[in-house]
Amino acid sequence: MAYRVGVIGGGQLARMMIPPAVHLGVEISVLAESEGSSARLAASQVGDYHDVDVVLEFARGVDVVTFDHEHVPQAVLGALVDAGVAVHPGPSALAVAQDKIVMRRRLGELGLPVPDWAAVHDAAELGVFLAEHGGRAVVKTARGGYDGKGVRVVRAAHEADDWFGALAEDGNGGALLVEELVEFRRELSQLVARRPSGQIVPWPLVETVQRDGVCSEVFAPAPSSAGRLADLADDIAQTVAERLDVTGVLAVELFETTDDRLLINELAMRPHNTGHWTIDGSTTSQFEQHLRAVLDLPLGDTGRHQPWSVMLNVLGGPSTGSMADRLPALMTDQPAVKVHDYGKEPRPGRKVGHVTVIGDDLDEAVFRARAAVEFFTD
Amino acid sequence: MAYRVGVIGGGQLARMMIPPAVHLGVEISVLAESEGSSARLAASQVGDYHDVDVVLEFARGVDVVTFDHEHVPQAVLGALVDAGVAVHPGPSALAVAQDKIVMRRRLGELGLPVPDWAAVHDAAELGVFLAEHGGRAVVKTARGGYDGKGVRVVRAAHEADDWFGALAEDGNGGALLVEELVEFRRELSQLVARRPSGQIVPWPLVETVQRDGVCSEVFAPAPSSAGRLADLADDIAQTVAERLDVTGVLAVELFETTDDRLLINELAMRPHNTGHWTIDGSTTSQFEQHLRAVLDLPLGDTGRHQPWSVMLNVLGGPSTGSMADRLPALMTDQPAVKVHDYGKEPRPGRKVGHVTVIGDDLDEAVFRARAAVEFFTD
Repeated sequence: MAYRVGVIGGGQLARMMIPPAVHLGVEISVLAESEGSSARLAASQVGDYHDVDVVLEFARGVDVVTFDHEHVPQAVLGALVDAGVAVHPGPSALAVAQDKIVMRRRLGELGLPVPDWAAVHDAAELGVFLAEHGGRAVVKTARGGYDGKGVRVVRAAHEADDWFGALAEDGNGGALLVEELVEFRRELSQLVARRPSGQIVPWPLVETVQRDGVCSEVFAPAPSSAGRLADLADDIAQTVAERLDVTGVLAVELFETTDDRLLINELAMRPHNTGHWTIDGSTTSQFEQHLRAVLDLPLGDTGRHQPWSVMLNVLGGPSTGSMADRLPALMTDQPAVKVHDYGKEPRPGRKVGHVTVIGDDLDEAVFRARAAVEFFTD
Repeated sequence: MAYRVGVIGGGQLARMMIPPAVHLGVEISVLAESEGSSARLAASQVGDYHDVDVVLEFARGVDVVTFDHEHVPQAVLGALVDAGVAVHPGPSALAVAQDKIVMRRRLGELGLPVPDWAAVHDAAELGVFLAEHGGRAVVKTARGGYDGKGVRVVRAAHEADDWFGALAEDGNGGALLVEELVEFRRELSQLVARRPSGQIVPWPLVETVQRDGVCSEVFAPAPSSAGRLADLADDIAQTVAERLDVTGVLAVELFETTDDRLLINELAMRPHNTGHWTIDGSTTSQFEQHLRAVLDLPLGDTGRHQPWSVMLNVLGGPSTGSMADRLPALMTDQPAVKVHDYGKEPRPGRKVGHVTVIGDDLDEAVFRARAAVEFFTD
């Protein structure tokens, strides 16, 4: 009897679970938000993941439910568990990923390194935090942010008034997260996968470059990261995975500070943009590993095919036409570049695809990956 | 606008085109013979590929039609071409792959090295051939054979009487192919891909081990094959591709004779079992390359991730249960083995999956691949 995985959400993360499902013989189905989703090939159902009945019906035909995103309401997750459905990651782990204030609190309780933070309810409280942190800070909405949305650098207490106002209106607990503006040398990301029965396997620590709050480039492994830095990142991610009972892939986004500390920036409990390089660069991709983990199958080897992998996002896509229109020119110029087209309409800033180059020379791989992306983003 | 490829036939070759289609953003659809086919995830239609109307309807929504197998009748292929549908490989190329007598004749006309052969219509003619070739020969049905079916070693003229009888009944041209029994050191396979506009890209020559007429093991590249042997195989395959106007992937199965010649054994005009190692071992897999080729997109780099790739078929499958049941034990024992489960019911001799191991030591890779297959074939 084949393993059956159901994915809630039809975005590119669900889409990229399809290839390893095909190879492993895993029957994959997707509950998509709409027709024409990125994961439409496996979309067995279109429906609203806020609707308990819709989700329960979807779950009926699968061995385990997992996710393309972290937005499924706790009430729906709870109903699944109550109905005896295996859900990975589970509701209690996801609760930490769904609310940045809960996340900061839990990580603090675990003694893990995070930026200074506070939950602030109004401009006055924000003003106090600013005064204590050199007059500047980062304000984040606790819920619903992604790719730079819901994140703002502020230098005055009134600069988050619109968000405080919205909080009052949506009755959402009434607090924003404020954090110190970390002086960092670079951003890093540590991915691991964990099975319900406990096995954890990491990939190497990677460096990520953000542009306008969105992941733009990933270098794997992170240059000059062997030894203490890599060990520390691995320890942090394994501790998070174990103590929060995360199942499936966990991404821990980190700041490497100018004073040589690692601080946790964000968590994601699913395959993550900073792990896309693994599709072409690792023996086991994050998407295959996620399937194995949520099915509680033994995890795969995470060795690399080549010393370096470079992944660049295609943000926005071409100014005219589609990625497909640009493929012939790119493929002529760069026959070794791996192209990933998410089947989404181009739109400014939108992640519509990515490219990966692997090789034994980092500079060469970066050069070729950047040359490739230019074909898609003129 | 996305590229749209339609595949006739729902077997594992169509199934394995799904992953690269997902990554490249190619919309793939499959005309499957039946529900529950190996390529069911992309099966947009179930119908009989002998039926012109069924095939024309299927072709309406795609940019190019290609194939999981070579059995689509010429009348159907001709109707597609007449309707303005792009068909790759085209009818004239496929005609050569569909009939072994036509194939031998065409290869001979091109001056390519083939075993001694004849088209024989009855036992008397077979007897003449046997007398001229040391009293033994290989008899093959011209059409419909695969995986050792339709192939028989004979030592007496009467040993093909049943097939001669069947020929008379089915009115199928009335001849069998008879060939010298080649004394070979080993079997090799040369794969190339060719675009309609002419570009040809090869993979390295590989060694194949057959068991009961079925491909069992593939070593890539073929050990001790650098230099003259590899160049000759490449020349042969490129000549076949060009002169027969083959588009898509072409596999040329070869004998390396005990007197150091290369003779063409079989041709396949589609992704081929001897190229499955490319999924995990090559920058561009044969399935991605086939999609690129039939869409007339520039072909990808065929470099290897590691010096060696070893692919073993899972023939028959487990004596009880399914491949899926054996995955946990295999994955625990061999975390770096890549498993491919075709989603087919186990049946003696049936190709139900394969495993691939890549690495820098051939013996180690062979050992691990054999250990892996044993989990599936006890």
